Amino acid sequence: MKHDRPISTLALTLGIVSALSGCASTSSSPGDGSIVLKSVRGFHVGGERVSLQGLPTKEIRTNPQAPIRISNPNGDYQVGQLYVQQFSLVSPKGKVPILLWHGGGLTGVTWEVTPDGRSGWHEFFMRAGYDTYVSDAVERGRASWARYPEINKIEPEHRTPNQAWDIFRFGPSDGYASDPAKQKVHPGQQFPAASIDQFGKQFVARWTTSDAWIQKAYNELVQRVCPCIIIGHSQAGQFVYAAAQAAPDKIKAVVMVEPASGLEPAKFSGATVKHIPHLTVWGDYITGSKLWTTYRGNVQRYTSTISAAGGTADTFDLPAMGVRGNSHMVMMDKNSDEVARLIRNWLVKQGLEN
Amino acid sequence: MKHDRPISTLALTLGIVSALSGCASTSSSPGDGSIVLKSVRGFHVGGERVSLQGLPTKEIRTNPQAPIRISNPNGDYQVGQLYVQQFSLVSPKGKVPILLWHGGGLTGVTWEVTPDGRSGWHEFFMRAGYDTYVSDAVERGRASWARYPEINKIEPEHRTPNQAWDIFRFGPSDGYASDPAKQKVHPGQQFPAASIDQFGKQFVARWTTSDAWIQKAYNELVQRVCPCIIIGHSQAGQFVYAAAQAAPDKIKAVVMVEPASGLEPAKFSGATVKHIPHLTVWGDYITGSKLWTTYRGNVQRYTSTISAAGGTADTFDLPAMGVRGNSHMVMMDKNSDEVARLIRNWLVKQGLEN
Repeated sequence: MKHDRPISTLALTLGIVSALSGCASTSSSPGDGSIVLKSVRGFHVGGERVSLQGLPTKEIRTNPQAPIRISNPNGDYQVGQLYVQQFSLVSPKGKVPILLWHGGGLTGVTWEVTPDGRSGWHEFFMRAGYDTYVSDAVERGRASWARYPEINKIEPEHRTPNQAWDIFRFGPSDGYASDPAKQKVHPGQQFPAASIDQFGKQFVARWTTSDAWIQKAYNELVQRVCPCIIIGHSQAGQFVYAAAQAAPDKIKAVVMVEPASGLEPAKFSGATVKHIPHLTVWGDYITGSKLWTTYRGNVQRYTSTISAAGGTADTFDLPAMGVRGNSHMVMMDKNSDEVARLIRNWLVKQGLEN
Repeated sequence: MKHDRPISTLALTLGIVSALSGCASTSSSPGDGSIVLKSVRGFHVGGERVSLQGLPTKEIRTNPQAPIRISNPNGDYQVGQLYVQQFSLVSPKGKVPILLWHGGGLTGVTWEVTPDGRSGWHEFFMRAGYDTYVSDAVERGRASWARYPEINKIEPEHRTPNQAWDIFRFGPSDGYASDPAKQKVHPGQQFPAASIDQFGKQFVARWTTSDAWIQKAYNELVQRVCPCIIIGHSQAGQFVYAAAQAAPDKIKAVVMVEPASGLEPAKFSGATVKHIPHLTVWGDYITGSKLWTTYRGNVQRYTSTISAAGGTADTFDLPAMGVRGNSHMVMMDKNSDEVARLIRNWLVKQGLEN
């Protein structure tokens, strides 16, 4: 969004507009103006207590001046909770909040910032006037992770950028290099690959055994804070779709960006969610990826049952719409705001803004 | 803070005041009014690239519909970074931002919310008019943790509430129980002990071997975003004090809440930081705790060198001031806002607000 007026004048204008509207941003251009919050709060939802006994104690020293103390691992642990940060606007324009659910091996930071330091989709949708809830799923980020092998039975995967390079469709499987001069990227790639080190700092360990905990915590979140829109990414596909199946009265729209899965046929009915508009957003280079061709097929098998039941299941195939070069990390690509605007316009069409 | 007027009238009044001041909260009572942000952004600071080779691959399946894929742990990892969330007000009242550094086994959530769901100090200081930076130190929360034993050489400590009960001075060492009816707490205790399960969800794994990484990342943060005030808790003592020694021109005040350590004598000079006002805040029940008597002694040996050099090193011994019952988690205790106000008044006295 471009403005011909200097920022200071713009800020003044917005300040006056804000005064008339209870101090909320009323800019028609998300990306400008202030974000007027009633509150911002992080908290944990879900989880359970697990007790361990019979483990050996050990001696630890927690700072150079501390006495050695006995660390006793026996006792209670809180496990399986998720973390969510709630941003409540004074005057939301969205009829319901947006929940932002990240993908595998990542956290809510996915939505906060791009590796090259631009503003993320979280700010975009707040500025557009939506209350937001940005979560870290179970075991990721501020949600904390349960010790292994006593609670989690296996060790997690720590993903490298080497491996992500291909899976996230930045370039060919041998294309990773920290040095931008040595990287191989797909032609026309929009991901800010030169900032791959900064993106790597966002990676967190993931377990492949925690889906049930994650689903349970997300379902609790939905019961607690919805009605809502959910925007999910990648691994969140199965969790968002299952959450909508479990609480079809609570979800007003589902936007899945590059979902890595649909739902297994036994676990859903398109008719249950046919009143919930669904949007699926796909980036570029999918036809050249066996993995993503498979994933997209699984997702389409799910969403097609929603259309078949008479519901709305739209697809933004970005390259087919002339928006080219998007990786799996659409919200971090150089054209991330352009895609965010397409999604927002779709939400407006669904009647979700006042 | 009590108000006789109903909230809706109050909000309206504040809305008008906000309009006159560029839409920033000018309430004299932090805890009321809106928070008018220019931006909110999370990002990573510090860290380094570590490469691993020679590890075995394994087969994993990341969702029920996914093909089995080879997970190859060989390659590059980003380790030793911290995460920080920046909240920038449109019209800050504080002359410099406040950096909030949490304690051991915890994350920035320390400042966000109390276990019984009240607003945390982060909101308090934003409402008071300060830009804020809330961090997760290396290996905690959204900062991510480096795999072990290949990068971290040892396993972390996962703390139980059983053990925290005594260390955090909620009650005697055998006093923990999840069931509030069975808990033993210190007489007059202000910690919301009935919400111990919710507090336990905030716990994260900690390593005792990562101090150098943490210090390096914090020092980089200071270079990047200060001049600033730092408010730290517990384990952050050593990191805050060392950061001030390393960048005495960047730190305008140090507020340590229950610091678990000072600095080792070889690592500091009181004269270096004598121009930086220091405040140390201590809760109740310390004289009955051998651990905390030791910790307080270490801290006083450090801060007394600042006074001896002619600087300001104030102490709020809360029970001596008539503020009784505070645990180690002062920012979560039932009187948390009362203590926040004392700290804010001290900052005002240091000339740190416009």
